Amino acid sequence: MMMKVTLSQIERITSELLGKAGLNEENVKIVTDIYMRATYHGVGHHDIHNIPGTLRNLTSGKIKSNPSIVRLHQHGALESYEGDNGLGEYCGAFVMKRAMHLAEKHGISLCSIRNSNHLLACSPYVEMAAENGYIGYIITRGAPTMGAPGRKEKVIGTSPMGYAAPADKDYPIMFDACLSYASFGALDAKMKAGESVPSYWGLNAEGNPSTDPAAIANGTRLPIGGHKGFGLAILGEIITGVLSEGQIIDEPQPGTGEVGKPSHTAICIKADGLMDIDRFKKRISEMKDRMRSRAENLRIPGQRAGEYKEKILQEGSLEFDEEFINELNQWATKLGAAPIQKS
Amino acid sequence: MMMKVTLSQIERITSELLGKAGLNEENVKIVTDIYMRATYHGVGHHDIHNIPGTLRNLTSGKIKSNPSIVRLHQHGALESYEGDNGLGEYCGAFVMKRAMHLAEKHGISLCSIRNSNHLLACSPYVEMAAENGYIGYIITRGAPTMGAPGRKEKVIGTSPMGYAAPADKDYPIMFDACLSYASFGALDAKMKAGESVPSYWGLNAEGNPSTDPAAIANGTRLPIGGHKGFGLAILGEIITGVLSEGQIIDEPQPGTGEVGKPSHTAICIKADGLMDIDRFKKRISEMKDRMRSRAENLRIPGQRAGEYKEKILQEGSLEFDEEFINELNQWATKLGAAPIQKS
Repeated sequence: MMMKVTLSQIERITSELLGKAGLNEENVKIVTDIYMRATYHGVGHHDIHNIPGTLRNLTSGKIKSNPSIVRLHQHGALESYEGDNGLGEYCGAFVMKRAMHLAEKHGISLCSIRNSNHLLACSPYVEMAAENGYIGYIITRGAPTMGAPGRKEKVIGTSPMGYAAPADKDYPIMFDACLSYASFGALDAKMKAGESVPSYWGLNAEGNPSTDPAAIANGTRLPIGGHKGFGLAILGEIITGVLSEGQIIDEPQPGTGEVGKPSHTAICIKADGLMDIDRFKKRISEMKDRMRSRAENLRIPGQRAGEYKEKILQEGSLEFDEEFINELNQWATKLGAAPIQKS
Repeated sequence: MMMKVTLSQIERITSELLGKAGLNEENVKIVTDIYMRATYHGVGHHDIHNIPGTLRNLTSGKIKSNPSIVRLHQHGALESYEGDNGLGEYCGAFVMKRAMHLAEKHGISLCSIRNSNHLLACSPYVEMAAENGYIGYIITRGAPTMGAPGRKEKVIGTSPMGYAAPADKDYPIMFDACLSYASFGALDAKMKAGESVPSYWGLNAEGNPSTDPAAIANGTRLPIGGHKGFGLAILGEIITGVLSEGQIIDEPQPGTGEVGKPSHTAICIKADGLMDIDRFKKRISEMKDRMRSRAENLRIPGQRAGEYKEKILQEGSLEFDEEFINELNQWATKLGAAPIQKS
């Protein structure tokens, strides 16, 4: 059964649970902001629904609630950091904020962090950058789960990445995707819907093309555009794993042996570095308008998320499966936080 | 009939013809270097074979031989320039060299130029950056010739882009591709070979998927991975057309009314900004090795070009269709340069 919960209740329980799980006050604020932004974008999975998993990781000690982030190296607008096995949401927000700071002076910047964890989604970080007047970009490395063109061996990660740019009307342009045809989430959705997928999306465990999303999930996902997506994924691994001095390809994390330990890299460009901000935003909107005047009702990246966010902020509440709210409330009871009141 | 020509003869006639077509001494050197690099990469079309077209454009006054490149704006490591309708090869080399210079101080840089022309290929520019110790990236905007996912209307350019990163053995990682499934060159090659193409590469003029490369070339090419390639092409248009204050989407060039006037943007990252250069190059090689140890004989971006370059530099000569050499020699006679001696 579905039930309505106000956004303020969602935000309140998220921050209270994170605090009870050990995050200090400042970190609670940062991570809650990321969760709320992701939830406003209406992805429906990499958002508030991840809180129980995060709480499991924090309370079991698998991920540190208050990591000591240390700068490794710096040169002009380049910086690299050790993430100390902190929350991906914390490490991701950290590098994006550093990148914004560095871009203010240098116009463009790159900040990389190793030894992090899953950062939920890219859109919260790049949205934050766009709101502050930057073209924001973030990319994450992970385990080699993707093939090369025509190869069934998994050789590289999928380079989940996102960017955003501010516009002067409607919503920012905002993009969040990986370089395989399908994320595991997308394959999972197809499985649940009982739908088949294009045969070029991936190979089954025997290395043959398949239209069965389950077979591809158990086999090898392929990069978009063959050698094109593959080449761009290699660039992703260079600017994350190599530049952060983190792990690359199948290299195990020292100590734990974990393969695929995330590094994130944020790049910011000061939108008003080369023209005033009004002109930049106007040109972004004009770009959208020019495309739409060629193709009526064309969907622009960021449009769906922007419309969804506007709608739920207006309504002030969201619908959830009651089971999920019960799960949050069980965590609240366990950690000594106030549960969500069911009216 | 095919005939062998020494590399020194190719280089000599290229620079002599460019000089006779009006380029000053410095510009001749810069543009000849780009042509030779492209030729060494063995693409077989966007290389020395483009010289006749370039000479036509220069002698007819369509493209300026010695443009006055003027800086428009600057902020830290960001710069934008007016290209004054110069050769794409000249403007591309210009922004890459400025980006290298700016990255030396700032660690990362972005340099954009508007009102340029076709730059041949991306690999010459990014190879130059990698040789000098940078991760080099270059991207060009052009006319809207690509569709959006499932749309037959042509809404945006294909964002031809390339990058390179130095390695400590074999060749640099080097990538050169656009964001549609197929360049016009790739479709043309398929047509000549009488081969069909995957139906997801594009739509025919009626807006239906087609496996006929000619029908797609006359219809609409589609972005790799649907909304993924589309979203990345929009990022390309932002960092080229918008940041250079050049044209966007279908905006006509002032004066000429030309649609699709190129802007190029180069981004450089100082490879030894965050670690010493030996470590950086070693990690790039290790990345290749780790992928290859998972997938035997895996082709790495840059491998084909690297192997080809090594081979022809060793041989000191290249095979050409005699008709092409005759065409070059006709230009030599016309412009008063010494022709290639046939032995």
